[in-house]
Amino acid sequence: MPRILRIAGAQMGPNQRADSRPAILARMIALLDQAAEAGAKLVVFPELPFTTFFPRWLIEDQAELDSYFERAMPNPDVQPLFDRAREKGIGFYTGYAELTPEGKRFNSAITVGPDGAILGKYRKVHLPGSVEPRAGDRFQQLEKRYFEYGDLGFPAFRGPAAWHAPVLGMLVCNDRRWPEAWRCYGLQAMELMLIGYNSAAYDPNGGSTENEAIRTFHSTLAAQANAYMNATWAVSVAKAGNEDGSGLIGGSVIVDPNGVIAAEAKTLGDEVIVADADLDLCRQGQTKMFNFAAHRRPEQYRRIVDQVGAQPPGA
Amino acid sequence: MPRILRIAGAQMGPNQRADSRPAILARMIALLDQAAEAGAKLVVFPELPFTTFFPRWLIEDQAELDSYFERAMPNPDVQPLFDRAREKGIGFYTGYAELTPEGKRFNSAITVGPDGAILGKYRKVHLPGSVEPRAGDRFQQLEKRYFEYGDLGFPAFRGPAAWHAPVLGMLVCNDRRWPEAWRCYGLQAMELMLIGYNSAAYDPNGGSTENEAIRTFHSTLAAQANAYMNATWAVSVAKAGNEDGSGLIGGSVIVDPNGVIAAEAKTLGDEVIVADADLDLCRQGQTKMFNFAAHRRPEQYRRIVDQVGAQPPGA
Repeated sequence: MPRILRIAGAQMGPNQRADSRPAILARMIALLDQAAEAGAKLVVFPELPFTTFFPRWLIEDQAELDSYFERAMPNPDVQPLFDRAREKGIGFYTGYAELTPEGKRFNSAITVGPDGAILGKYRKVHLPGSVEPRAGDRFQQLEKRYFEYGDLGFPAFRGPAAWHAPVLGMLVCNDRRWPEAWRCYGLQAMELMLIGYNSAAYDPNGGSTENEAIRTFHSTLAAQANAYMNATWAVSVAKAGNEDGSGLIGGSVIVDPNGVIAAEAKTLGDEVIVADADLDLCRQGQTKMFNFAAHRRPEQYRRIVDQVGAQPPGA
Repeated sequence: MPRILRIAGAQMGPNQRADSRPAILARMIALLDQAAEAGAKLVVFPELPFTTFFPRWLIEDQAELDSYFERAMPNPDVQPLFDRAREKGIGFYTGYAELTPEGKRFNSAITVGPDGAILGKYRKVHLPGSVEPRAGDRFQQLEKRYFEYGDLGFPAFRGPAAWHAPVLGMLVCNDRRWPEAWRCYGLQAMELMLIGYNSAAYDPNGGSTENEAIRTFHSTLAAQANAYMNATWAVSVAKAGNEDGSGLIGGSVIVDPNGVIAAEAKTLGDEVIVADADLDLCRQGQTKMFNFAAHRRPEQYRRIVDQVGAQPPGA
């Protein structure tokens, strides 16, 4: 029997700091409804979709900072999304800022099954930015200040039988540029990677090194190539547009195991993309070109784990 | 001072089994002359450029098999290429089938400096194909039969001052699809990756799973994304066209550290491509997005070296 899973990405336009949480959640529920009406069984929301991307500011008021975090998942603020998803029988991936009972903070993601059960959880490993604010910059990138490095590794998990029991993986934003992260899932025979992101469209402080076109190209290139090299489907979904004065790329895509784009967002706003993922398409790569058991040579890869930074020859 | 290195790729059309070695070498010298006349300081030839791609056949006559191998590099058969390169003051990368004094065989590559000195040597790690021939197939892929796995790791090396002393890396063909290989060089602050390949354009035995377009796309995608994710220039060069009844893709490219194509072959024949590589373009990626020391988390990557093949969750 063919293993076809209809999947969706729910790209979101910007969440302004002034937007209320219920207003943002209502947009997410509308996107979930669209995905369900299109027949999707699983919809992917962006990284940190419930609020603005708060790591762009130095926030010294602890109560304000805490307001961006979830102390449990689900919780009353997000429960209506969970309720609607279960009602429609659709699962979803969502990012969120996690505050644990022990007071630890992570940039996390969960995948929720069609029955509302949490199937898997991930904590972002590749935190960009800095701990200390950069002097004189209007916009910061303070993920290393607000979050701890993910401590769950890269834990693949199986989706339900109603989805044809695919092996699923999750990453968050910047992780998608790191082939080590994809490979750790590829080594678990992943068939579908779920990713949400917020990526700057340009330097919000006025630098001109990279424009929106090249940054969108990078985002798409990373999804395509890493999907191909791990013989997996991937859904990579943005929060996009001008958010509180800082531009975010769109470019949400669904990519097949050949690295070919199956669906792509055309806007910088709320937009649902959909594709039918033939999960058995992963078999071609998994059993031939990327038959890891036949072709990988880990004894030659030691540098990847023995060394953190780059060391030029002769240095 | 800007570090601009003019680099070239010398794509080759097919070498038929009936072609004489001197005739093939004369084509290579003509390509080298073109590259030198275009002002290139370094030109990249394909994998196994001196002969037809012999691993497509089961060759049981040891003398015939040995005729495809080089017992030293250089040697009288290839000396005219080395001589012309030194005369023109141009360096080159070339693949070759290596037979060591100890009787070991590798699918190797060297980079030769403008003075004729061998600057670096590499032995292909990711051998595709099989040891035993596939029954009933007209065309085989017997690299695992004819070669041992490369035993030199991924040794980056510096080019000469006349090239602005770039950190260079080398791979051979299938290696370019393996992000582990690129990363091992990236961790040595590579600025320019040199690759030669012979890649099937379609299944020569009649399978219809992949056509020439998708295979060329895969080749280009792997070069672009791995160059981007390691903040390096890359030159990836084919032997192309219908070689002894088996089709090879072209698609030779020079790619910048953004993953953007700077030059691309348009034919399936002998063709030189050229680009000016600003080596300092690597700095943007190396110091920001892919600042490995700041952002890599090797403690989470253990699976890459602890495991060879894929292991699904719960299996």
